[in-house]
Amino acid sequence: MSLVAQLQTALGAQAVLVSEAEVAGYLQDWRGRYGGPAACVVLPSCTQQVAAAVRIAGRLRVPVLAQGGNTSLSGGSVPWPDGAAPMLINLARMRAVRAIDTANDSMVVEAGCVLAAVQQAASERRRLYPVSLGAEGSCQIGGNIATNAGGTGVLRYGNTRENVLGLEVVLPDGQIWDGLYRLRKNNTGLDLKHLFIGSEGTLGVITAACLKLHPLPTAQAVAWMAVPNPAAALDMLALFQRRCGASLSAFEMMNGPQLDYVLEHVPGRRAPLPASYAWHVLVELADSGAEPALTGALQETLQQGLAQGWVLDASLAASGPQRAALWALRHSVSQANKQAGIGLSTDCALPVSAVPEFIERATLAVHRVMPGLPIIIVAHLGDGNVHFIPLIPFAGFGPWSAVADRQATASAASAVRQAVHAVAHALSGSFSAEHGIGQLLTQEMARFKPAVELAMMRGIKGLLDPQQLFNPGRLFPAVATTRTSAGTDVEGTSDE
Amino acid sequence: MSLVAQLQTALGAQAVLVSEAEVAGYLQDWRGRYGGPAACVVLPSCTQQVAAAVRIAGRLRVPVLAQGGNTSLSGGSVPWPDGAAPMLINLARMRAVRAIDTANDSMVVEAGCVLAAVQQAASERRRLYPVSLGAEGSCQIGGNIATNAGGTGVLRYGNTRENVLGLEVVLPDGQIWDGLYRLRKNNTGLDLKHLFIGSEGTLGVITAACLKLHPLPTAQAVAWMAVPNPAAALDMLALFQRRCGASLSAFEMMNGPQLDYVLEHVPGRRAPLPASYAWHVLVELADSGAEPALTGALQETLQQGLAQGWVLDASLAASGPQRAALWALRHSVSQANKQAGIGLSTDCALPVSAVPEFIERATLAVHRVMPGLPIIIVAHLGDGNVHFIPLIPFAGFGPWSAVADRQATASAASAVRQAVHAVAHALSGSFSAEHGIGQLLTQEMARFKPAVELAMMRGIKGLLDPQQLFNPGRLFPAVATTRTSAGTDVEGTSDE
Repeated sequence: MSLVAQLQTALGAQAVLVSEAEVAGYLQDWRGRYGGPAACVVLPSCTQQVAAAVRIAGRLRVPVLAQGGNTSLSGGSVPWPDGAAPMLINLARMRAVRAIDTANDSMVVEAGCVLAAVQQAASERRRLYPVSLGAEGSCQIGGNIATNAGGTGVLRYGNTRENVLGLEVVLPDGQIWDGLYRLRKNNTGLDLKHLFIGSEGTLGVITAACLKLHPLPTAQAVAWMAVPNPAAALDMLALFQRRCGASLSAFEMMNGPQLDYVLEHVPGRRAPLPASYAWHVLVELADSGAEPALTGALQETLQQGLAQGWVLDASLAASGPQRAALWALRHSVSQANKQAGIGLSTDCALPVSAVPEFIERATLAVHRVMPGLPIIIVAHLGDGNVHFIPLIPFAGFGPWSAVADRQATASAASAVRQAVHAVAHALSGSFSAEHGIGQLLTQEMARFKPAVELAMMRGIKGLLDPQQLFNPGRLFPAVATTRTSAGTDVEGTSDE
Repeated sequence: MSLVAQLQTALGAQAVLVSEAEVAGYLQDWRGRYGGPAACVVLPSCTQQVAAAVRIAGRLRVPVLAQGGNTSLSGGSVPWPDGAAPMLINLARMRAVRAIDTANDSMVVEAGCVLAAVQQAASERRRLYPVSLGAEGSCQIGGNIATNAGGTGVLRYGNTRENVLGLEVVLPDGQIWDGLYRLRKNNTGLDLKHLFIGSEGTLGVITAACLKLHPLPTAQAVAWMAVPNPAAALDMLALFQRRCGASLSAFEMMNGPQLDYVLEHVPGRRAPLPASYAWHVLVELADSGAEPALTGALQETLQQGLAQGWVLDASLAASGPQRAALWALRHSVSQANKQAGIGLSTDCALPVSAVPEFIERATLAVHRVMPGLPIIIVAHLGDGNVHFIPLIPFAGFGPWSAVADRQATASAASAVRQAVHAVAHALSGSFSAEHGIGQLLTQEMARFKPAVELAMMRGIKGLLDPQQLFNPGRLFPAVATTRTSAGTDVEGTSDE
């Protein structure tokens, strides 16, 4: 029997999509840059169905591609144009909240739960699920876990990895691993969930997770600061950490050009300060308790910053709507940049202390390739995560007008990305902080990962997926890579 | 050439101990319960020396045992009496603090650094390394990481695992993996450090680590509460989490018998409350900022608890010495219990919500085996970690007088432990929260771990240590286990 016939027998016809019209929506990424055909699209409604489908694909040696909300910025969750077309498993039907245990601050959810729905279910029980990112309205928790999603809450609450207590996974051999532990401490052997978190679908299909919840903050305080430079922003970060401790919940930096693009291209956004500045920081405190205490702490810290010269001007939100307006500036960067030009996005992580030097050296490196190119910077500064984005304005930029010569642009874009990654690496940084590898950065894996580390990863891959069927060509570099070029994704504007 | 001759050639004679007098101090655990001979004791002074020694042992197929401060409570860090004697590598000479980066809140330390020295080095830079436990004056950071040490700081800061950013490891094949990342975000492939954290020396030798630091709290507030029962303690935990948010830094419960033993056996300890109660909780708030705010929050929360009937009486420390006196009660439990009798310690983790039922059912289960036996309970309640300790008083307890019949006691002790573990397991709990497996609990691994999970663990072990030389017989259950008996460590009083 064929793959489809076997799947239909095992799962029922309605769980297996084959017609072109039905499968079309699953084959391309949301930006239309990556994609390819699938042997079929499976929509399982339970873990057993996932396992059955995986066993069938394994017997027939058909590649397996798990897909969540399909919001990957690295081409990790759609099929490929060449080679064997995969069985695509979309988890959207598995979206139950299986249990919430408020006394344990945990909830068990299926992989297809949309992140916003997870946040909502937690908040209805006065709990916080703290992972928050631009795609939260459509990305799914299974994908969040498979890519160890980051976002704006990492400074205080950690990445997705730090908010997972347990996992249920269908392994490549079709066995179900019930690792849905709900425990804060469990020293009984290797902690295997960490292998699957961030494995981008290469080691199995995550079908459910037990998530860690936190008390829901009852008070917020938000301010916008202009600072003279990134080093001063770091001084303010240290000051906030010292004075405000654990209530510091966001510390987001952007440069002047980034704010200008937001104000220019996104309707309804208003300048947070009366004058123009080179560097900006949005800072948020959040905690249990009452608002006046937080606002007071924020105000005092800002005053100290002003006195030190680390802050040039600041505006403190006086109400919920004002807080939302400041956050809206931050959340509008992707939309603004898309309209401003072609962003040659990068997603680097640095030791926090190295961010100023990174920005300086990366700017020089980019301008060696494309002199004078505008560079927009938006950073989760508290995490050392810098989205460093050389941007070719649609207005045109000398020889690199995107419209004029797409091929030359693509080649320059590749050179620019490689240069930025090399600077990050030289400063003990990473070429992918939160967006993962997907297919965009596999060559950078070959370029930068220590051989001994890559060999261990390949060993684990071979152990769990000896047929190499799970999301082939993703995460791991090709074995005989030429080590010459980075991804050539010229429109990778991904700035959250 | 023999092992010793090769080692002496490669590392120098003074790095290799062979005489009985010299090696004696490394062969037994600190309680004198476990131990055996070593082929020799190696004291490397750098990572390269560790790698050289491991390569030599690998060629000669000599087992390798890494040892830190030798404070294991599970017999994990000393040789075994039967089978091939290992090359014992003690890391004590590798105790450099390689770097502290305050702006990145990180420090790089060698494996042999004593935990207290790590805490001290951090605090001199106004930073907190938050892992804290009874053995901190002698345990080493390498051992902490190899066992994912817990302790009293987990509620707020997580286990050792959550406080490690990167690792340097000598792998069983003698290669050095430089994974000393200093990053908060790094989504570039599998996060391999988590394989080694908690692997108890079975996958390689951890030689250095990059640790996460936190702002040093500047204010503390501590109170002692009497509560009617564990359920009321949970109500208070939830109330504190809601009202005090992230400032809640410890929530430690003990029962009346535990407090009585402390007051009876440890000189200088004074009753925290005027009357006697069945259950007690020590609660601590800590934060940046000023003390009055914290004390006020603590006071208000206690008053609310009193009004609800969740608190029967409470005492709030009014000074540093008073805070220390309350903490001294908590820290004296091990010393007290050692003098009170033979503790049949367990170290279970439960979903926090399941702790009251666990205590109830485990008590019944123990009393089915040994009717009326005193049970002392000391719990990191915020983590769901219960040290549930049936105790045979030295005064004698019917037929189970330890002095009278050691064999009968050992057998009953084993039955008691198994019964307690079974209750924990039935409530989705774990039979080892923070003490690990070592050699004490390998049979419980066979009893409780899902087969699919054990198979993955064994696969990874085979991948990294195909000769099965690293800490053999520890962590992993024997392949053909009979699944009949738990460890028979009758004096396992380990109550931190």
